[in-house]
Amino acid sequence: MPRTWHLASRPDGMPTAANFALKDIADQALGDNQLRVDNRWLSVDPYMRGRMNDVKSYVPPFQVGEPMTGGAIGEVVESNLAGFEAGDLILHMAGWREGGVIGAESMPHKLPKPMLDAGISPQTFLHNLGLTGATAWFGLLKVAEAKEGETVFVSAAGGAVGSAVVQIAKAKGMTVIGSAGGADKCAWVREIGADACVDYKAGSLLKQLSAAAPKGIDVYFDNVGGDHLDAAFALARDYARFAICGMIDVYNNGKPQEMKYLVRTIPARIRMQGFIYTDYLAQMDQFYADMGELIASGKVQARETVREGIEATPDAFLGLFSGENTGKMLVKL
Amino acid sequence: MPRTWHLASRPDGMPTAANFALKDIADQALGDNQLRVDNRWLSVDPYMRGRMNDVKSYVPPFQVGEPMTGGAIGEVVESNLAGFEAGDLILHMAGWREGGVIGAESMPHKLPKPMLDAGISPQTFLHNLGLTGATAWFGLLKVAEAKEGETVFVSAAGGAVGSAVVQIAKAKGMTVIGSAGGADKCAWVREIGADACVDYKAGSLLKQLSAAAPKGIDVYFDNVGGDHLDAAFALARDYARFAICGMIDVYNNGKPQEMKYLVRTIPARIRMQGFIYTDYLAQMDQFYADMGELIASGKVQARETVREGIEATPDAFLGLFSGENTGKMLVKL
Repeated sequence: MPRTWHLASRPDGMPTAANFALKDIADQALGDNQLRVDNRWLSVDPYMRGRMNDVKSYVPPFQVGEPMTGGAIGEVVESNLAGFEAGDLILHMAGWREGGVIGAESMPHKLPKPMLDAGISPQTFLHNLGLTGATAWFGLLKVAEAKEGETVFVSAAGGAVGSAVVQIAKAKGMTVIGSAGGADKCAWVREIGADACVDYKAGSLLKQLSAAAPKGIDVYFDNVGGDHLDAAFALARDYARFAICGMIDVYNNGKPQEMKYLVRTIPARIRMQGFIYTDYLAQMDQFYADMGELIASGKVQARETVREGIEATPDAFLGLFSGENTGKMLVKL
Repeated sequence: MPRTWHLASRPDGMPTAANFALKDIADQALGDNQLRVDNRWLSVDPYMRGRMNDVKSYVPPFQVGEPMTGGAIGEVVESNLAGFEAGDLILHMAGWREGGVIGAESMPHKLPKPMLDAGISPQTFLHNLGLTGATAWFGLLKVAEAKEGETVFVSAAGGAVGSAVVQIAKAKGMTVIGSAGGADKCAWVREIGADACVDYKAGSLLKQLSAAAPKGIDVYFDNVGGDHLDAAFALARDYARFAICGMIDVYNNGKPQEMKYLVRTIPARIRMQGFIYTDYLAQMDQFYADMGELIASGKVQARETVREGIEATPDAFLGLFSGENTGKMLVKL
């Protein structure tokens, strides 16, 4: 009787525990082309907030009363699907649950054995070799076209995507300025290679960023929106590129963003581009090859914030919006 | 004794007549590599507002107590500069004055005689074959990469740049929605080919635009910023491109722009790019060839709002910010 989180109601503003309901699911017979899976790791990601609204977007909304989904690593316990057998570790999209019967709609993929044998942990495929790592790599190198010698500003640099951006940018010879909330997180952001870290809880973001980047920034990797984005507009050098990955500051409030420096788009010829890493699926081989090497060489490391047990899933998810994670937030089952 | 407008003081917010002073300039002897010119047409353009501030930008600021400059068409009356002779009509940057002695720093160019002989008026080189036409052409076709069959929204569609965008877009097989202030201007915007025109003085811009573009917009050509830009974010289709040419709404007030729909950058993968047409000088031949043909075939026509006499120059300039112009604002001497 695998337990599964359902969307109990849609949030108005910041979600709460009341929006989620954990329900037992009756054991199901295994059909053709299906797998029975036992989940080991569940991913919670900021983009899931958008799926809680009843709005058409790049991923369909969760439905009230229905199971929630998301990235997960599981072990196959029974297989009627060609190419999979009991014991395989797989990445799939039937997260937010202990496990159960899944089919092709959950996009199961076997984790590559050579990488596991080389010591890469299975949950890496939920961060640096998964959604967050690919988002960081494509956003920095393909969307923003960041180059050696340039100055990169990345917000939420202590998060899963941000910390990957910091490390990839350093490995490629860029100057990196991160932002994070609090002295501890900033210390860690510097530890993984950032040349400077702006603590947005410790005074004016714009003043601190201006001091850290006296010549301005060439690239901004946005995970936050709001004041961070406005500071980037203020300090953008000519022909700066902004890769807009997320705006966690505004997902939970309907307030307009007050942009004082947006007008600099014209004199500085700024290019701002929204993106989703799945637009780059055709180039995933490039990502795996380069990122695999960066991880194997130790140039890109991971930090995980782990919550234990299926019950902790909504709490882990809500923690993303109050900055409780350093690195990737995961639920371990 | 050619009279010349000087910057008397820097404006705080909306400029007034008191920021300008008309002074006699003593007759000057003609030096080597200089021309004496009699101006016929002066250009006033929104970008000049930026030059009134003491801020480093893509064009240097006007200096208090010094003559102002800008695009002008003049007739050469005396020449010590090789390649020019008395009677030549030239385009140069020593505007805001009746004429006088100019050198290479004013970038004199002879107007091409074949085009004048074909009936193209000299002042066309201050609009459709000059700064505003090139801004429209490069912004629409190179920056936003607008294509046949797409839906284009252009703000300030009754202005010099906007009306050129409307006509170029129609000539290239796009659906065009303009915005303008007032029924008369909107009628003219439709007359020059727009499929619809949104009157921003007549109710909610967003509702009107949404009705005019029920499937959303592929391209936004921004001359205005503020609510117009936010409406474009609200209605952008996937992979929409915004060419940001101007933000006349915000040049005279220091207020932040309240962006409610900026967050759509991510799910719709919007690309927003600021530009200045001089970034495309290497491609001017393409522009002259294509735009010359569009003008010769009557597909792109001009409307001019003309003020008479050197005294009227500041008034003509200030009229740009209250929408007094339909098409290109010019001063005729």
